[in-house]
Amino acid sequence: MSWTTPKRAFIGAASAEGGTKLNAFDNALLKLGIGNVNLVKLSSVIPAHIEWIEEVHDVPIGMLLPTVYAHIESDEPGMTISAALGIGISENNEGGLIYEYAGYCTKEEAEEMVRKMVEEGFAMRGWKLAEFKVASASITVKDKPAAAIAAVVMFPY
Amino acid sequence: MSWTTPKRAFIGAASAEGGTKLNAFDNALLKLGIGNVNLVKLSSVIPAHIEWIEEVHDVPIGMLLPTVYAHIESDEPGMTISAALGIGISENNEGGLIYEYAGYCTKEEAEEMVRKMVEEGFAMRGWKLAEFKVASASITVKDKPAAAIAAVVMFPY
Amino acid sequence: MSWTTPKRAFIGAASAEGGTKLNAFDNALLKLGIGNVNLVKLSSVIPAHIEWIEEVHDVPIGMLLPTVYAHIESDEPGMTISAALGIGISENNEGGLIYEYAGYCTKEEAEEMVRKMVEEGFAMRGWKLAEFKVASASITVKDKPAAAIAAVVMFPY
Repeated sequence: MSWTTPKRAFIGAASAEGGTKLNAFDNALLKLGIGNVNLVKLSSVIPAHIEWIEEVHDVPIGMLLPTVYAHIESDEPGMTISAALGIGISENNEGGLIYEYAGYCTKEEAEEMVRKMVEEGFAMRGWKLAEFKVASASITVKDKPAAAIAAVVMFPY
Repeated sequence: MSWTTPKRAFIGAASAEGGTKLNAFDNALLKLGIGNVNLVKLSSVIPAHIEWIEEVHDVPIGMLLPTVYAHIESDEPGMTISAALGIGISENNEGGLIYEYAGYCTKEEAEEMVRKMVEEGFAMRGWKLAEFKVASASITVKDKPAAAIAAVVMFPY
Repeated sequence: MSWTTPKRAFIGAASAEGGTKLNAFDNALLKLGIGNVNLVKLSSVIPAHIEWIEEVHDVPIGMLLPTVYAHIESDEPGMTISAALGIGISENNEGGLIYEYAGYCTKEEAEEMVRKMVEEGFAMRGWKLAEFKVASASITVKDKPAAAIAAVVMFPY
């Protein structure tokens, strides 16, 4: 087990409403299965040989998990908010990069932003992009505060 | 010892003035006994069977401590700023939730905000609220920058 | 090895342009040799007996490194942005303090801000300032987004 160089990761995105902006954020985390852990915000690099998992389970309540996330909350009715993560994986899974974007825009616009950022990040490093993943969520605010979140959660084992 | 699933926690709140906003924040941390450690900001879940301690002591200078905190700084004379954390503990101490609020408002308003957020968080999870704690601090800015902070600091042992 | 009380630290500052603000930030991190790790943001205390290193090398891709950093990004042509960290070391290297500043200002102004904050932090604690270091970077925005960053990266070994 190594907290400092994670072994596995989960990627997901969700949107939700709530009584407050923070509750909306919390409710989106619950939808992703990460509402009962502590997210420790990271900048955004994927360790080599990471294994991607489909679901978060059997994590103790309150466990600290290193997480890259993009999020946005709003209580302005009629506005559409979106959050996206673009994940680029290098050849032979020797590392990867994650770029975040969240804003008042459509899901497609957020996805396009992170795609461009991943491409530039790989070009700057001279890395070859073997695989591109995107996680994105979007919601149009109605009468309650809403949140959109995209996350990559990393696990020490 | 486990950095990833804390065993003990301290809760406190303080306000202070300083020569700059950051110094005011720093001075509030000093009042809480956590001015000489490194806070690593968490989202906000309390591990099961946490033990609450009354005071922070015997912590090495610069130790990294996972901390949930709400804070606000201001240099606008006459304004009142407040920070609050609402902490809900589930039955049998099997976990808990922390919600943050900080803003230009009274201490009572900040406390009311976090109380509502805790109640919604418990309702969403179907958890029963066994105990509610609140930590809050407030200050009215005079001629120097001021800060209000509320914190739950977690310890690996 | 101890993630919780770091043993060594690196200090540096850089500025860069990029296709987006986040890419500019990323490019500045690459210049500093910390573009392929995960920064975990800290508040700002230096452990006792820290050893300063000249360069970051042999760090696994995606490793989590506790980091104090100040940063600013801008895409407003003609504007100068600066980021600075002021580092005060106490007598006998028994601990230190780091204060951050980033804003629309010159490098000299940012450096002056952090110097004052370090002095106040030491005075408040009754510590004697044995050594003062500053890391700062500045850039004037042209036609592309730009970033300035100053960082102290800490290592568990």
